[in-house]
Amino acid sequence: MSFKITILGSGSAVPLEKRSPTSQYIICQNRHFLMDCGEGTQIQMRKNGVKFQKINHIFISHLHGDHFFGLVGLLSTMHLLGRDKNLHVYSPKGLKEVVELQYKLGGGKLSFGITWFEMEANFKGIVFEDKKVLVRTFPLKHRIPTQGYVFEEKTKERSLIKEKFDDATLRIEDIPKIKQGLDVIDQSGKLHKVEDLSDFNPSFSYAFCSDTAYFEDIIPEIENVDLLYHEATFTEDMRERAKKTFHSTAIDAANIAKKANVKRLLLGHVSARYTDTIQHEKEAKTIFKNSIGVEDGMEFLVE
Amino acid sequence: MSFKITILGSGSAVPLEKRSPTSQYIICQNRHFLMDCGEGTQIQMRKNGVKFQKINHIFISHLHGDHFFGLVGLLSTMHLLGRDKNLHVYSPKGLKEVVELQYKLGGGKLSFGITWFEMEANFKGIVFEDKKVLVRTFPLKHRIPTQGYVFEEKTKERSLIKEKFDDATLRIEDIPKIKQGLDVIDQSGKLHKVEDLSDFNPSFSYAFCSDTAYFEDIIPEIENVDLLYHEATFTEDMRERAKKTFHSTAIDAANIAKKANVKRLLLGHVSARYTDTIQHEKEAKTIFKNSIGVEDGMEFLVE
Repeated sequence: MSFKITILGSGSAVPLEKRSPTSQYIICQNRHFLMDCGEGTQIQMRKNGVKFQKINHIFISHLHGDHFFGLVGLLSTMHLLGRDKNLHVYSPKGLKEVVELQYKLGGGKLSFGITWFEMEANFKGIVFEDKKVLVRTFPLKHRIPTQGYVFEEKTKERSLIKEKFDDATLRIEDIPKIKQGLDVIDQSGKLHKVEDLSDFNPSFSYAFCSDTAYFEDIIPEIENVDLLYHEATFTEDMRERAKKTFHSTAIDAANIAKKANVKRLLLGHVSARYTDTIQHEKEAKTIFKNSIGVEDGMEFLVE
Repeated sequence: MSFKITILGSGSAVPLEKRSPTSQYIICQNRHFLMDCGEGTQIQMRKNGVKFQKINHIFISHLHGDHFFGLVGLLSTMHLLGRDKNLHVYSPKGLKEVVELQYKLGGGKLSFGITWFEMEANFKGIVFEDKKVLVRTFPLKHRIPTQGYVFEEKTKERSLIKEKFDDATLRIEDIPKIKQGLDVIDQSGKLHKVEDLSDFNPSFSYAFCSDTAYFEDIIPEIENVDLLYHEATFTEDMRERAKKTFHSTAIDAANIAKKANVKRLLLGHVSARYTDTIQHEKEAKTIFKNSIGVEDGMEFLVE
């Protein structure tokens, strides 16, 4: 379970009983991230067994309510549950002000600090990086400044094939070199190719793109990811409405997935007019076979 | 069904799957009111079959998040569902700013107007009145300015007892007089006591008091109401915690109910530490017999 996405909310602007507004819980190499936080996200977290205090980084795509109205309540609950660890919030500019105003009105102060990373429109760059994971962001095309995000595992160490070591007279300091992918010369002077002593561990990546119109500029950003979540608010019969509101159809999402050569596509941010995603999936599959319409509570391994 | 309260949320600051933060739907003489609007209220409304657009007046007790974090989302949904009717929102000062800021960030504008009635601390008076219904507000005692509300039916017209009219030679203009409670003299000069020709229709009242510490100043405001909702965040073993946080225990609520001579008491705003209200109810009943611990989705007729 090194890389897993849980769909906490797969809906769009109007919350329904069975389809909450956007939020996702992402576990990557034991880092716990929250991606967007629509109203009721904290209840969806409870339903899906998410431990509130494990989350240290929250990424917000844009400041339409269905992507952030749940943040202030979640922060409040984290506070009431006694959090003292600092929290990092990444979003387009303006979120800090609205959150702080609400706590000021309530006469309260959070028990933990928040490091705000507020982006100007069209920001592109790395927002989080540690030894094992990297998160980068890039602009989408919507009615207001909106950011897409890619969550990437960094290059992993190779796994040693222990039984191949018997014949080699390696030095202890050769081990890290092999893990990092280097050939080594043993004490007897013999060259060992790294492929003979170790196995490659692939690194995986996940891209989140919501909300956005069809926008080919994102293709270089998400190229070859293992899993892409792309909004598909509408089916093809609503193409005009999609265009007008800067949203995508399932076909738009599938075309992006195909052109970006991703492995699998998740279709979400479904309009409240649909009771399921059968038609979205059907339409997307005419362009890109590995398309899946999502529902709240679904889990996906990135592999 | 002239006067009905639906408990949309009976919980306190930390929302749980089965106990939402405070909100109530009040129907009184076909007027549809919302009392408080914690996060997820719109989903609770859907679960309980509440028609969003029938609500024209929203009353907010105070600006702790569990009483208003759901408002901005509800307004947004009313907008997306095409509302054009004006909406009235009553609350302590500051709410308008935070709601407007959030729509400004989202680049949007609501499709309907809002008339804000923002109160200074310790405001007392009538906030809504029409032909049949009156709503008044008064200060509670909490950590920040907090308002209680009473919803009252005005004096109703008397119901005519048709069969008693046979022997009377009344004029057509006598009818409204009887309905309003006046004796009349018929065309033959005979006096008819209004009690002989018509039945009295009692008017009912409902008081909402949350959040508040034990506060006897509210007694004259809520005296003799038919139904009182009084917060009972804690049971008696947590009296110190109640005191420190300006909340009430079930015993506090029962003492207020008894001293104010109300008919029935609802105990709500239950702390997340409790899985039910059995103990609250048990303790309150030692003081005031007609005490009921509430759960989300419960309905109460005011009669």
